[in-house]
Amino acid sequence: MKIVNTLVLGSSILFSHAALASNWQPLPETAPAPKDNPTTAEKVELGKILYFDPRFSSTGTVSCNSCHNLMAGGEDQRPTSMGVHGKMGGRNAPTVWNSAFHSVQFWDGRANTLEDQAKGPVTNPIEMGMKDLDTAMERIKAIPGYAKYFEKAFGKNAITIDNAAKAVAAFERTLITPNSPYDRYVKGDKNAMTKQQVRGMNTFAATGCTACHSGPAFNGPTMPLGQGFYAKFPTFTDNEYVKKYDLMADLGRYEVKKSESDKHHFRVPTLRNITDTAPYFHNGKVAHLDEAVRIMAKTQLNKTLSDQEVKDIVAFLGALTGEYPTMTMPRLPATPGTTVLAE
Amino acid sequence: MKIVNTLVLGSSILFSHAALASNWQPLPETAPAPKDNPTTAEKVELGKILYFDPRFSSTGTVSCNSCHNLMAGGEDQRPTSMGVHGKMGGRNAPTVWNSAFHSVQFWDGRANTLEDQAKGPVTNPIEMGMKDLDTAMERIKAIPGYAKYFEKAFGKNAITIDNAAKAVAAFERTLITPNSPYDRYVKGDKNAMTKQQVRGMNTFAATGCTACHSGPAFNGPTMPLGQGFYAKFPTFTDNEYVKKYDLMADLGRYEVKKSESDKHHFRVPTLRNITDTAPYFHNGKVAHLDEAVRIMAKTQLNKTLSDQEVKDIVAFLGALTGEYPTMTMPRLPATPGTTVLAE
Repeated sequence: MKIVNTLVLGSSILFSHAALASNWQPLPETAPAPKDNPTTAEKVELGKILYFDPRFSSTGTVSCNSCHNLMAGGEDQRPTSMGVHGKMGGRNAPTVWNSAFHSVQFWDGRANTLEDQAKGPVTNPIEMGMKDLDTAMERIKAIPGYAKYFEKAFGKNAITIDNAAKAVAAFERTLITPNSPYDRYVKGDKNAMTKQQVRGMNTFAATGCTACHSGPAFNGPTMPLGQGFYAKFPTFTDNEYVKKYDLMADLGRYEVKKSESDKHHFRVPTLRNITDTAPYFHNGKVAHLDEAVRIMAKTQLNKTLSDQEVKDIVAFLGALTGEYPTMTMPRLPATPGTTVLAE
Repeated sequence: MKIVNTLVLGSSILFSHAALASNWQPLPETAPAPKDNPTTAEKVELGKILYFDPRFSSTGTVSCNSCHNLMAGGEDQRPTSMGVHGKMGGRNAPTVWNSAFHSVQFWDGRANTLEDQAKGPVTNPIEMGMKDLDTAMERIKAIPGYAKYFEKAFGKNAITIDNAAKAVAAFERTLITPNSPYDRYVKGDKNAMTKQQVRGMNTFAATGCTACHSGPAFNGPTMPLGQGFYAKFPTFTDNEYVKKYDLMADLGRYEVKKSESDKHHFRVPTLRNITDTAPYFHNGKVAHLDEAVRIMAKTQLNKTLSDQEVKDIVAFLGALTGEYPTMTMPRLPATPGTTVLAE
């Protein structure tokens, strides 16, 4: 993080706008997959069904899609999520759209891959609340229609939690939103963004936001799976926002690593589709994007933006909202004449 | 109900199998709509979005689809549903598939139309939990993207609860599952059902089930909207099932009408797709379809079915599972840079 912070503080010196402009990257239309889980149509099909199946939760009411809603911005628009029995999570649900472009998962990077991430919420008592992963898979095995999907994706006798996680991850790697106005702009369509958006793009860079929010997903440079790109938030604490939005309460990656140097470090989130993912930050305490921009400038770069600069950056961020693919609803496999959710 | 009960008791005398066979009706592919809400593509489009929008609930976690899941059998496979904050409902969620063929809505028939039904759960404190319908519509008005859909469906300045309910009802009238093996059989394809299913069909009629479960949706004769077709459940109470499954606790339509003659009366539910809608009955206490069949014969007709008869009827009921239409997911209109769910 020392390197990042140096870049942040020195950004206006180190980069000219022209130099920065050459680093603007469009979103790829496909995501990389780990060697042991190449994406196949069969895995994607199974993963999509599992993603929408609430029977993975103890109550049968919470699916992946409950908190990472694909009919919206890939999250739930709540400050923090609500799991089984109305229990409240501690952090804001990150969007699943373009999550394949993160090199680690969760706000604190505690999962190296989407495969690892997929297993987490299932047994989290305030999320899907299953007793253990074996119990979850017993449920899936008790649903006869799943057998053929697992067999097509992984071969015979393959109904395991690892394969379920692989399928969900394979599906998630297809959740990409290309062709935003920004993408079309950097690919050469100079009319794709408004004048204000272009101005905001330059302000975004000149302010130093790109020190962390760089790369095709605006979540830092492309890195090998498992590495993670983190930033300390807040970096500057002597401002009104820290108390107002309770920014020091969550120790972030420290909770995983227990190392002083990880205190208040969080994975740098993507800014893709950020207009659709309010409220903002790890604690979801900021309801408006303009305020989030103001806070970021102050807490991360110790800068106070003018109202016009904030408006321009917000306009630019609006240009990062891409095209959500049209998706058909999956059919959840039936349990003819019975249910796995009887009390 | 006197007429119905006479038919039940006299069914084996009144009807020969041949006579009954002539009454077997396939499911229509379109549903009737009330005069003041003709179905249009624009209403259906809006209604589908509203149906899937969890922002209609106080917590932002419960949509119509949460308890009436269109990716499954149109309900939630739970004994009773779970609304906001994990609160539990008192009755089993009826399937929304083919609900357009009911002449009243809810187990107790307290809504005459799908339009009236749609408004009920929104302000029910254990379902969607909104303070009142005005508050719900303020939410919808605060979501800019809804304006164009309401305007296309209803004209300008039309964002009202009545129009929202009309749109949801119009969408629900498209939720029809035709072409079940049964439908193909009664239309002339004699190979559409197995021998066991045909035998079960005859047993179903001979036992007297058709006294109530008649008509194209197996929920009684086609009736004008608002009339309702009810049956007393249990009719015969001197059997082991009444206590075992707590069948006397719910007073049914009495809770609406406060009239002695309505005690324990319930709307006769459709049997369409019943293999996909376990658990069974108004209280959802019966997890298996074979047991539900046994209970029905005993409590409604005072008959004890043989295991073979039960198996045959269950096989026949499996022939009532139709074709679920392939549906695209709606996009929920955005609130750019903010959320209506901030605490």
